[in-house]
Amino acid sequence: MNGNQHLFIPGPTNVPEPVRQAMNLPMEDMRAPDFGDFVTGLLSDLKRAYRMEGGRVFVFPSSGTGAWESAIQNTLRPGDKVLMSRFGQFSLLWVDMAERLGLDVEVIDVDWGKGVPVAEYAARLEADKGHEIKAVFATQNETATGVTSDIAGLRAALDAAGHPALLFVDGVSSIASIEFEMEKWGVDLAVSGSQKGFMLPAGLGILGVSDKALAANKALAGDGMARCYFSFEDMIKLNDTGYFPYTPATQLLRGLRVSLDMLLGAGMETVWARHRRLAEGVRAAVAAWEGCELVAQGPGWQSDTVSAIYVPDGVDAREVISGAYYKYQTSLGTGLNKLAGRAFRIGHLGSLNPVMLCGAISAAEMALVDAGAQITPGAGVAAAQAHYRDTTPSTLAASARAA
Amino acid sequence: MNGNQHLFIPGPTNVPEPVRQAMNLPMEDMRAPDFGDFVTGLLSDLKRAYRMEGGRVFVFPSSGTGAWESAIQNTLRPGDKVLMSRFGQFSLLWVDMAERLGLDVEVIDVDWGKGVPVAEYAARLEADKGHEIKAVFATQNETATGVTSDIAGLRAALDAAGHPALLFVDGVSSIASIEFEMEKWGVDLAVSGSQKGFMLPAGLGILGVSDKALAANKALAGDGMARCYFSFEDMIKLNDTGYFPYTPATQLLRGLRVSLDMLLGAGMETVWARHRRLAEGVRAAVAAWEGCELVAQGPGWQSDTVSAIYVPDGVDAREVISGAYYKYQTSLGTGLNKLAGRAFRIGHLGSLNPVMLCGAISAAEMALVDAGAQITPGAGVAAAQAHYRDTTPSTLAASARAA
Amino acid sequence: MNGNQHLFIPGPTNVPEPVRQAMNLPMEDMRAPDFGDFVTGLLSDLKRAYRMEGGRVFVFPSSGTGAWESAIQNTLRPGDKVLMSRFGQFSLLWVDMAERLGLDVEVIDVDWGKGVPVAEYAARLEADKGHEIKAVFATQNETATGVTSDIAGLRAALDAAGHPALLFVDGVSSIASIEFEMEKWGVDLAVSGSQKGFMLPAGLGILGVSDKALAANKALAGDGMARCYFSFEDMIKLNDTGYFPYTPATQLLRGLRVSLDMLLGAGMETVWARHRRLAEGVRAAVAAWEGCELVAQGPGWQSDTVSAIYVPDGVDAREVISGAYYKYQTSLGTGLNKLAGRAFRIGHLGSLNPVMLCGAISAAEMALVDAGAQITPGAGVAAAQAHYRDTTPSTLAASARAA
Amino acid sequence: MNGNQHLFIPGPTNVPEPVRQAMNLPMEDMRAPDFGDFVTGLLSDLKRAYRMEGGRVFVFPSSGTGAWESAIQNTLRPGDKVLMSRFGQFSLLWVDMAERLGLDVEVIDVDWGKGVPVAEYAARLEADKGHEIKAVFATQNETATGVTSDIAGLRAALDAAGHPALLFVDGVSSIASIEFEMEKWGVDLAVSGSQKGFMLPAGLGILGVSDKALAANKALAGDGMARCYFSFEDMIKLNDTGYFPYTPATQLLRGLRVSLDMLLGAGMETVWARHRRLAEGVRAAVAAWEGCELVAQGPGWQSDTVSAIYVPDGVDAREVISGAYYKYQTSLGTGLNKLAGRAFRIGHLGSLNPVMLCGAISAAEMALVDAGAQITPGAGVAAAQAHYRDTTPSTLAASARAA
Repeated sequence: MNGNQHLFIPGPTNVPEPVRQAMNLPMEDMRAPDFGDFVTGLLSDLKRAYRMEGGRVFVFPSSGTGAWESAIQNTLRPGDKVLMSRFGQFSLLWVDMAERLGLDVEVIDVDWGKGVPVAEYAARLEADKGHEIKAVFATQNETATGVTSDIAGLRAALDAAGHPALLFVDGVSSIASIEFEMEKWGVDLAVSGSQKGFMLPAGLGILGVSDKALAANKALAGDGMARCYFSFEDMIKLNDTGYFPYTPATQLLRGLRVSLDMLLGAGMETVWARHRRLAEGVRAAVAAWEGCELVAQGPGWQSDTVSAIYVPDGVDAREVISGAYYKYQTSLGTGLNKLAGRAFRIGHLGSLNPVMLCGAISAAEMALVDAGAQITPGAGVAAAQAHYRDTTPSTLAASARAA
Repeated sequence: MNGNQHLFIPGPTNVPEPVRQAMNLPMEDMRAPDFGDFVTGLLSDLKRAYRMEGGRVFVFPSSGTGAWESAIQNTLRPGDKVLMSRFGQFSLLWVDMAERLGLDVEVIDVDWGKGVPVAEYAARLEADKGHEIKAVFATQNETATGVTSDIAGLRAALDAAGHPALLFVDGVSSIASIEFEMEKWGVDLAVSGSQKGFMLPAGLGILGVSDKALAANKALAGDGMARCYFSFEDMIKLNDTGYFPYTPATQLLRGLRVSLDMLLGAGMETVWARHRRLAEGVRAAVAAWEGCELVAQGPGWQSDTVSAIYVPDGVDAREVISGAYYKYQTSLGTGLNKLAGRAFRIGHLGSLNPVMLCGAISAAEMALVDAGAQITPGAGVAAAQAHYRDTTPSTLAASARAA
Repeated sequence: MNGNQHLFIPGPTNVPEPVRQAMNLPMEDMRAPDFGDFVTGLLSDLKRAYRMEGGRVFVFPSSGTGAWESAIQNTLRPGDKVLMSRFGQFSLLWVDMAERLGLDVEVIDVDWGKGVPVAEYAARLEADKGHEIKAVFATQNETATGVTSDIAGLRAALDAAGHPALLFVDGVSSIASIEFEMEKWGVDLAVSGSQKGFMLPAGLGILGVSDKALAANKALAGDGMARCYFSFEDMIKLNDTGYFPYTPATQLLRGLRVSLDMLLGAGMETVWARHRRLAEGVRAAVAAWEGCELVAQGPGWQSDTVSAIYVPDGVDAREVISGAYYKYQTSLGTGLNKLAGRAFRIGHLGSLNPVMLCGAISAAEMALVDAGAQITPGAGVAAAQAHYRDTTPSTLAASARAA
Repeated sequence: MNGNQHLFIPGPTNVPEPVRQAMNLPMEDMRAPDFGDFVTGLLSDLKRAYRMEGGRVFVFPSSGTGAWESAIQNTLRPGDKVLMSRFGQFSLLWVDMAERLGLDVEVIDVDWGKGVPVAEYAARLEADKGHEIKAVFATQNETATGVTSDIAGLRAALDAAGHPALLFVDGVSSIASIEFEMEKWGVDLAVSGSQKGFMLPAGLGILGVSDKALAANKALAGDGMARCYFSFEDMIKLNDTGYFPYTPATQLLRGLRVSLDMLLGAGMETVWARHRRLAEGVRAAVAAWEGCELVAQGPGWQSDTVSAIYVPDGVDAREVISGAYYKYQTSLGTGLNKLAGRAFRIGHLGSLNPVMLCGAISAAEMALVDAGAQITPGAGVAAAQAHYRDTTPSTLAASARAA
């Protein structure tokens, strides 16, 4: 009776109506004779969203974290040396996992607000003449800070050094939202989840795997880290027939079918451009808020899927978030770890449009003012409006004129 | 993929999630032995929403227009004299129906922007010493112009004149949204529909009938206007057992059960106050738009469920509406009849909240500017924000503090 | 937790999952600029389901009873003489309506268990040299008794007599289920509803109108019976632009879009054949139940959408129905009017399949035995199984072999 | 249009309508301030369904296989000796996992058709004076063969031997369906999944953990098997605040809330009894099929959640399953591994009722006859009907009488 809840966290994202309709269904037999064809088509289209022709995409009943674990367990051995960088809560957690799974992690700590230090990686790869580094890890989009890194640049660094390390990418909050090119960029293991750009509920861990990574898995010959639930081998054997080694989340797979149809129907470039446009409106709003600032340190690092925003001095970001939630029915992202109290986040990925974001910005403005920020109410919305008006797709403008 | 459509027409309104969930159901047997108890409870609770203890409420599978027709057919005879007023598209259509159904309609035309002319009615009732006027009709909320009339005042006028005419009220866009008191105000026939304050899809015509109106129906003794589908007699006979004379729209009835639980659980006074608050925010925005003006001529006439807004001279309201629809995925109400091109409407009834309305206002601002209006972008949103911030319910503010 | 309710009444029928999904949606603007195209396509496809090229189909927010009323109000005048027959609860109610709406009804009463007496109609039409009979009414499928009448034969009788009377058909429980040919049979007004063969919830009254009936409407020139809600004139004016004179039940229209796609995609002949097959299995079961008998008096009258079944002497059909409902979660149709206590009904129309009907037959068997019937448990199911096995569509059998 | 698909596999099971409604929802913020209370209540009620007061229940976004893995990873060390038995596809897979995760598995192979060999376990435990066996594994319900084992007996054997080994139970297809007593039976790790007795889609791995098992986990002190996604430590830390270490499947959690309300509202004993009644009807049908036989070797092993059924000699069970699927829209369980072609399965757990099972039995009968089985059609249904009639709950019979 009190209207919609407004969801502007960087995932789970808003589920489009056609996807929601598709998931409103009775259960089905995951061993039915025609289920295999459905799965085969789905996995093949997932590859198109990942922009890859070779390799495979695995879909686990798990969160993205599970796909992280699968990527490591199936291609590396305990004690293998890997190169990682840490500049936010999620890159931090990935390092933690790598260590707990027994890797020898060389971590580069970076200021929160910047991303993967490509030059530094390049230097270390160059120096690693013995190719002791087995894998290089990069968080393409650090969800905690709203920072996007340069994966193409990282590939160039690997190539320049002639280094054979596997390239692991955390694309949980980037794939199917911002530019991602599995094959062109030579990514070997790319992790995502259902609840971000794929616009589904949480529950699927999605993992793109290159032919090179599959070869690395094969080279382990069943040896390496203990694994079973997330093992490539079991998954490959069953996926080849269109089935799964254990009960898949069929409801989400049916939803994924529709979301892939939407994404591929629009074209991935269009999807990426849409996210860019939405993000720029939010950044225009932030720029109009006195005393607020993006955590991302400069345009080169700004993410098109989530903005982390420092609140003005003297303001408690937790109060902004709590106020938005209780008073304005709006979920904003919290400041994680060292950003707690200092920043809040606006997720702007998935199924969204300018008016929804004007609502989000309004909610943030009201909550900021309530929390003591000296911003000009409406200023952010006005800035966002200007951007959205200026960037209206010409087809929509034409429809409006023709009506 | 492009986010939610935004619905800000004055009905159908946004369906709350619990209502939507309740309507996602298989069909059922409307003659099942336990269906009667369900219906009996539902009709009884509808009376609570109408604020009546005596009388009855009928629920027809129809739109509100059908309930208009039922009210007339079952209590009046062809040739009966009735007093009506006309000041917008819906009061106009009601007059048209009354004439087509054979009533002798005395129509008072009023400027669009004002409502029921109570003093004029009073004078005519006073003059009608022979009580030739059998019924007095009043559109409580003229949806086309955003004008609310004074039903309590009309009752007072009837009482002052000692006039026995039946009081018909069109409450389609007012009942379950703004103050309505069937029994306290002595309303005899009160029409509403499922798709407004009751927050359901269209499909139910709802008609409150006083004991006096039931007696008038009985006095016709089956005579009067030909009727069958909308006849009180058939409905009474079956409703008394908890059933219907023909197949009811069970899906909507199950939804109505939940929406009534929500409305009565909150309390009707709370529902009315909520609409007042939401409306005032929109009016604050309109006041901040240079050159725009409410169609309602002054605070006494302003509706809390819908605002009809004149666009500045030189701007075509159709372009605003079309632009909002195609470019900003936002449905605004059209200017009906003589308001076409000159006004657009924002519906602010049903399941809504401040952030949704900030979105609506943003959409209107963008579409207005696109159409050439010289307003200050963001000014309306800022004004609405200020109002919503100032009027945050204290319980919500307390929750936010405690979090 | 206790499994699905089983719905085997002759409407509302089971909603197919794709239709249910399509109706799980937010509300929309029924005046949106692109809504008109949607409506135009829908009305045009409804004509294909009615098997007509000329004329129109109207869709009212109402039950089928409302469409009955519309058909009469818009083409006849009070006092017009019409020929009707009565052989079950629904043909009886239609006569009642015709009388209440002021027609001069010549009623032929027929044994319940038979249908429209074509020879008797032929004789009366032949005798009516002055063409005083303005319309001939026929209930194609009497839902109360499970009796189907010969509409093509009736047309032949009209033609043989060279009689210009309009032909009204109640097709509520036949259209979109069993053979119906609006144009080939020269039907002028054909009533149906959403909740039967169209597999939707109740809430739409659907009325096919021939060009001849439209001319009859035009000839009234707004005169004739008082009408407004169900008036052709208002509907035509707005339908011509793709809109409606009052708020339509958009949710059901979106569902209808999908059910029409299903019906027309399969082909109406296939739909009719499917119903024939399902019905024959039920009739085989009834034949296997000692002491039970169809109300329909012989194969010529048996309906393919519903079977009304006399229970053995000494058994109370109400006990069968109540037992099925409470003990076996199965809704069977009640015996209406003079069939109360003597018969129950199994609806076998809409979205059903053999296994569902084996379930229904099982429920009936259990409830019959519980109520004292001396039938052989399982005998009906065995007979139905044999029929369904023998009539398995060859494409399904081929799929099974290929698997 | 062709009616419901019929799902009679041993999971995923049919989702009750209230659960389906609850899962038809927009996404939500899993870090919302009031989400924690929701989770805390949910986990606490899960313990009631598991029949435990101490310990914990973990809910992973995974299948039940993931919960198997978690149980092992978090309480045992590589090389630990464990005692397992193998008598069907799922107990076989569990052994395989244990071996791959590095355990030293002592496997007892048992005829498929029998279950956990309690006496044999007792002997080995008795002999293991040095307590080298760290854990004893038991598949309570072998889904592949329809065999239920005696967990209480196993506990007694452990106690008799004074053996401290942990007791692992695979309860995927038993918990929330048939008798299971975590605390009374001294179970230490009990695995289940959302898609069986909990009547939800697949996607949640559920793991009950005793205080003793938590202590074993703590004793590992972070050492033992590498683990991260399925680690107890991370889950405990976050669960204690009502949250999760990564994005949970909120849609399923909302559904689980409703299914727990249904289960606990009815009472677990009632749930178990309901499954017993449903199963006995199916077994009565199997007994009536000439040449068919349960895989379970005698009443002591028969499962109340699934029946695996040998087809008569000369009949190919794959043809039965394929025919049921394509010709009768009914999913039966396949014969897994060495049962392929020799047996099919009927799942009878979750949200079901007698009429649904009469439908399933009918489908099986038709498909059996089609595949060449010389059974008497209808015989199975008749036998099941007799059982269901005789065991109608008295409250339902009373309702039927009162109606």
